[in-house]
Amino acid sequence: MDDLIATREQLGSGRASAPEAFARALALAQSGACAHAFIRTLPQEAAAASRPGVQSLPLAGLPVSVKDLFDIEGQVTAAGSAVLADAAPARADSTAVARLRAAGASLVGRTNMTEFAFSGVGINPHHGTPANPADPEVPRIPGGSSSGAAVSVATGAAFIGLGSDTGGSIRIPAALCGIVGFKNTARLVPADGALPLSTTLDTVCAMTRSVRDAVLAHEVLAARTVALEHKPLAQRRFAVARTGMLDGMDLAVARAFEASLRVLRDAGARVEEIALTEIGELGAIQATGGFAAAESYAWHRELLQRRGDGYDPRVRTRIERGAGVKAWEYLDLLRQRAGWIGRVRSALHGFDAVLSPTVPIVAPPIADLAPGAERDDAFFRSNALLLRNPSVVNMLDGCALSLPCHAPGSLPVGLMLWHGPLQDDTVLDAGLAVEAALRPLRQG
Amino acid sequence: MDDLIATREQLGSGRASAPEAFARALALAQSGACAHAFIRTLPQEAAAASRPGVQSLPLAGLPVSVKDLFDIEGQVTAAGSAVLADAAPARADSTAVARLRAAGASLVGRTNMTEFAFSGVGINPHHGTPANPADPEVPRIPGGSSSGAAVSVATGAAFIGLGSDTGGSIRIPAALCGIVGFKNTARLVPADGALPLSTTLDTVCAMTRSVRDAVLAHEVLAARTVALEHKPLAQRRFAVARTGMLDGMDLAVARAFEASLRVLRDAGARVEEIALTEIGELGAIQATGGFAAAESYAWHRELLQRRGDGYDPRVRTRIERGAGVKAWEYLDLLRQRAGWIGRVRSALHGFDAVLSPTVPIVAPPIADLAPGAERDDAFFRSNALLLRNPSVVNMLDGCALSLPCHAPGSLPVGLMLWHGPLQDDTVLDAGLAVEAALRPLRQG
Repeated sequence: MDDLIATREQLGSGRASAPEAFARALALAQSGACAHAFIRTLPQEAAAASRPGVQSLPLAGLPVSVKDLFDIEGQVTAAGSAVLADAAPARADSTAVARLRAAGASLVGRTNMTEFAFSGVGINPHHGTPANPADPEVPRIPGGSSSGAAVSVATGAAFIGLGSDTGGSIRIPAALCGIVGFKNTARLVPADGALPLSTTLDTVCAMTRSVRDAVLAHEVLAARTVALEHKPLAQRRFAVARTGMLDGMDLAVARAFEASLRVLRDAGARVEEIALTEIGELGAIQATGGFAAAESYAWHRELLQRRGDGYDPRVRTRIERGAGVKAWEYLDLLRQRAGWIGRVRSALHGFDAVLSPTVPIVAPPIADLAPGAERDDAFFRSNALLLRNPSVVNMLDGCALSLPCHAPGSLPVGLMLWHGPLQDDTVLDAGLAVEAALRPLRQG
Repeated sequence: MDDLIATREQLGSGRASAPEAFARALALAQSGACAHAFIRTLPQEAAAASRPGVQSLPLAGLPVSVKDLFDIEGQVTAAGSAVLADAAPARADSTAVARLRAAGASLVGRTNMTEFAFSGVGINPHHGTPANPADPEVPRIPGGSSSGAAVSVATGAAFIGLGSDTGGSIRIPAALCGIVGFKNTARLVPADGALPLSTTLDTVCAMTRSVRDAVLAHEVLAARTVALEHKPLAQRRFAVARTGMLDGMDLAVARAFEASLRVLRDAGARVEEIALTEIGELGAIQATGGFAAAESYAWHRELLQRRGDGYDPRVRTRIERGAGVKAWEYLDLLRQRAGWIGRVRSALHGFDAVLSPTVPIVAPPIADLAPGAERDDAFFRSNALLLRNPSVVNMLDGCALSLPCHAPGSLPVGLMLWHGPLQDDTVLDAGLAVEAALRPLRQG
């Protein structure tokens, strides 16, 4: 499937038009392929694709989807919940949406998500769960929380899926659906007008169909230019972190990951295993539930008192973990995180990126994790497994790119390249090289 | 008493020398006039006053005192406590100390302070309480927490007293001792190497003998240049905030404050009373003890477990208020503060500064508030009264200048000019004009 940049080139040569592209995307968004992926499609936005001059803008009038977390002027932001469905419409666009529009995006619709962005699974009891497009036989989870965003990009209903990543919510669905997800360093994109989960960890970012589109989407969202070196793989040095990151892999994940490392080594890259034992400290540091518990409870407390019965019980349980956290525990967490970031940054000095499987498993069937107390254990186990690797990067205040690394015929597997704070350009530059090197493997 | 800039000019003309000035300051610091004001004097720093080229630096080798809160390489930072007296010596200068040194300061000594910077009274049961130099008859409190810093500047043992201001710890002693104290917007001066009380509110700043010295000290500490307009008073518009700020004034304070307003009006300034009812919201916003309770408890928790018996009981009581604060309450405080700052900033739009009495009372006798359970009520009442006005500016993330406004023969009274975040240059510029206008009143 063409990426945004390829399609934009076709617009330039007259072989396609933005209004046609929008109409095609809208039809897809409203089709069975995208069942439950959109909370609302936005046919009225078609006009944006034929604005005069839009073709010369970076996004050229092409369709982009917006996670239900983000304010769009005049629309209700419900974050996939039932309890906010009757909230007042937003009075202004969130900064992320405003930047996408200013860059020439046409908004094809608001995408479904895990309620209030909790959980990496992608199940939503209110709006239904979109099926992962990678498996036409068995309905599998798309991953979350940006579930609909991933499906919109993987099916062709959007070139960019605007979402958020607090513990993996962009990278998990990107990995499970076989597309690209880039979580930038949080501070690089303003989060105003996005409903918060964890004000410390929330990152506004996007999914795309290629790494070069990820660079483009990031440049628009961060209002900055990425500095690319195009350094060859033979001059690159990657780390593979042993602690935690490689445990419990599905066979398909282990094979795809190992095959990818082999390709990179064959291309001359240095790939070195390191212990990175600091990852093992995170359990103790986050023993009281981490930032998400304390910070989400502070935001939801009053709403829970008024409308708690309307929450997904699995989400409510997790938010309520924050009720008992003490201020000193929270402040200790901030202090310990700062020290931990310093130690990990030292350990990663000199590497272009760390390589890890984005998640250790392929997408499980929805039926195994569907709502219901009898499947709660399996749900929380899968959720913990999905969040485990990506959330390390959020604690690091770092950046990470997930790109597909599976062979044809296999369920999608994501390869995560990650690094510390503000190493975004280094990671994207490495991602372009890795994506190119993996192309033969990806084509079988 | 000459200020730093006047003395520097005398050095330039050869009428004085920096080594002599240091020797004189050191002798004063070691004399009865400074009893209990210094925890340690630093004769070994004399060499700094005769460094080659020091005379051309902004502080020209002249003596400066350092509150016991700040790291000086090789020395113990005990923050006026007994429990840290055996701590390891600091491995490096705090940024504030390093900047003073680089600007040519000679460090005359470490000044006494309220234990761990708690309380605006200035009583210290471990090191004694320095007497306020303004009253040669009755030993009165100097104000705190930067008690020794104020005494060092008021007696002539230092030109600049480096200190900190979390709820008034620079401005209260400046007001009670009759000198100038400037609390800049917190973020303008790095706080590393200073023992924290409230990481949100702590401000590294200084006391001086004149407003122009305050500008100089701030430029050194903030490593920036203050933009001065020298706008005449006739073009200035001041607010007098009614809510809270004017309650419970001693007669001497009321008279000095009213007389100052009259002088400013006579000079053509517009002085308008405004309600500023937002000040009345702070009690509810800080009901759980505010930032200082939660943040100081997080820092002191382990030390209290090991050494709690060695704390001043009045300080320990206040720190322990933070033990029960919930993370959501703390996060609510952050959120409410942000909204409150926005409302106050709007209300102050168009004013050069707000004018308030720095504190509503003149310095009470030490005997009335000395350690002992039978005087705890009086102590906590005075403390609350002293902190009331200055702490509004810390919650505002603002800036404030306290300058003396009393007539000769009266106990010192401070006039506070204050404003919102990053209005530092406006406040300093107004302060220069107000100081000049008050000169006849100050000379009787």
